Amino acid sequence: MTGRTARRRVLRISLPGSAAARADLLAAEEPLGIRIGGEAFTLTMRTPGDDIDLTAGFLVSEGVIRAAGDLTAIRICAEGNCGHGGHDGAGNVADVTLSPAASARPLHRRAFLTTSACGVCGKASIDELTIRFPYDLSADQVTVAPAMLAKLPERLRAAQRVFDRTGGLHAAGIFGTDGTLLAVREDVGRHNAVDKAVGWALRDGRLPLAGCVLLVSGRASFELVQKAAMAGIPVLAAVSAPSSLAVELAAESGLTLVGFLRGASMNVYAGAQRLGA
Amino acid sequence: MTGRTARRRVLRISLPGSAAARADLLAAEEPLGIRIGGEAFTLTMRTPGDDIDLTAGFLVSEGVIRAAGDLTAIRICAEGNCGHGGHDGAGNVADVTLSPAASARPLHRRAFLTTSACGVCGKASIDELTIRFPYDLSADQVTVAPAMLAKLPERLRAAQRVFDRTGGLHAAGIFGTDGTLLAVREDVGRHNAVDKAVGWALRDGRLPLAGCVLLVSGRASFELVQKAAMAGIPVLAAVSAPSSLAVELAAESGLTLVGFLRGASMNVYAGAQRLGA
Repeated sequence: MTGRTARRRVLRISLPGSAAARADLLAAEEPLGIRIGGEAFTLTMRTPGDDIDLTAGFLVSEGVIRAAGDLTAIRICAEGNCGHGGHDGAGNVADVTLSPAASARPLHRRAFLTTSACGVCGKASIDELTIRFPYDLSADQVTVAPAMLAKLPERLRAAQRVFDRTGGLHAAGIFGTDGTLLAVREDVGRHNAVDKAVGWALRDGRLPLAGCVLLVSGRASFELVQKAAMAGIPVLAAVSAPSSLAVELAAESGLTLVGFLRGASMNVYAGAQRLGA
Repeated sequence: MTGRTARRRVLRISLPGSAAARADLLAAEEPLGIRIGGEAFTLTMRTPGDDIDLTAGFLVSEGVIRAAGDLTAIRICAEGNCGHGGHDGAGNVADVTLSPAASARPLHRRAFLTTSACGVCGKASIDELTIRFPYDLSADQVTVAPAMLAKLPERLRAAQRVFDRTGGLHAAGIFGTDGTLLAVREDVGRHNAVDKAVGWALRDGRLPLAGCVLLVSGRASFELVQKAAMAGIPVLAAVSAPSSLAVELAAESGLTLVGFLRGASMNVYAGAQRLGA
């Protein structure tokens, strides 16, 4: 299966006393193995689709690449194309070839499986957690109007292709300073949705994403702030709550962090100067 | 900081035109490094609290231990106590000493699912992803009434200590067949909340959790089904949507998977026989 959704037979129970079989549409979740130069680098559980963006964005988040020129190729292995068939067919391995310059940098290797819920559980030590940010976010003096920010959740939701049908996908959207939606990506894992959006930006030659706003449909954790900072995004907004470490890292890295962006209100946890406040 | 919540100053903006500084309570997020026999095993971002349960439950989920007797000690290192300070000081390293018998088993390092030339091609990688389950769930012939299940989300919510104040925490609750709440644990990561609950069960001598129901406050992914199966839990219920792979693994492992458990209705994705259906 390589689609974004999967249809399954489900028993719908409504109390009291009603039970009926029906078809239900689920968010697809499948493993994607990422290889660099023929060697396994990591494995992530993701929703199939935009796999090249996901791979590119993950490598940006990990500090492996910074620009499209660091990539020679990303090939998604098709059945028979890399020696053996995949689960339900093909397309669950991304084979990355770095440019000679990017290859020469030391690889930051993850020791563990990444899951769709946690983007940092691959790291074996606390020291490994902090990646050196390539951009100085505090130099990005963009300002964004609260009234513009308030309109973004509805735009993100309108652009989501799958969420309304499965209830199972997170979305990440990149918006210009004027509120224009530049890209939206979805995944069962919110860190994957952000990686997909960042990978789109890399491949489109847009890194760093100066002056842009990243909006996520759920909560804002440490790892999402880290991913935003790695992509040079000055403003991260979340529909739901941030964690304490997300706020700390945002403050340290010069990123504006907005949470509980709902209706006509929002909380600004760091970098309030960009909201003219 | 080692508390479950952290108080931060936030700028609350309400359109049009109102902005006021106020204190906001956030879900705490901090790294916890897990060492086994002095060697780094993994690192997880978690909400401090129940760290020994988290560590024990994670090791159950990974197949490293199965019973309290497999553990000689879990020590949460205080600053200066294990040679290096954690983020914000202390308490961010769990130092595990396995029993001689558990130490003698090979550590299952899931990361390197990377044996073949292709790395992780589909079906092969799924097989490697799936840890051999220690219990035969299909032998657990417990039945649970839909009317009982329908009451659990409210009970879980009532038992949550932090969620209502921060909006940032997932909860996992273990219930007996009659709907009695046995344990509830919370975390910014839902996989951590489940590990904490499973760790409680291990330490209380309750594994396998035959006849029990695990309820999670969010979505159900592959990894949550895997964790439930590793703990011998026959019924996993989620307030929100499951993923396709969660449904597949539940069906394969003999686990009952219920999603969208809200109000008086629910969807049964696998193992409907346990609901008398």
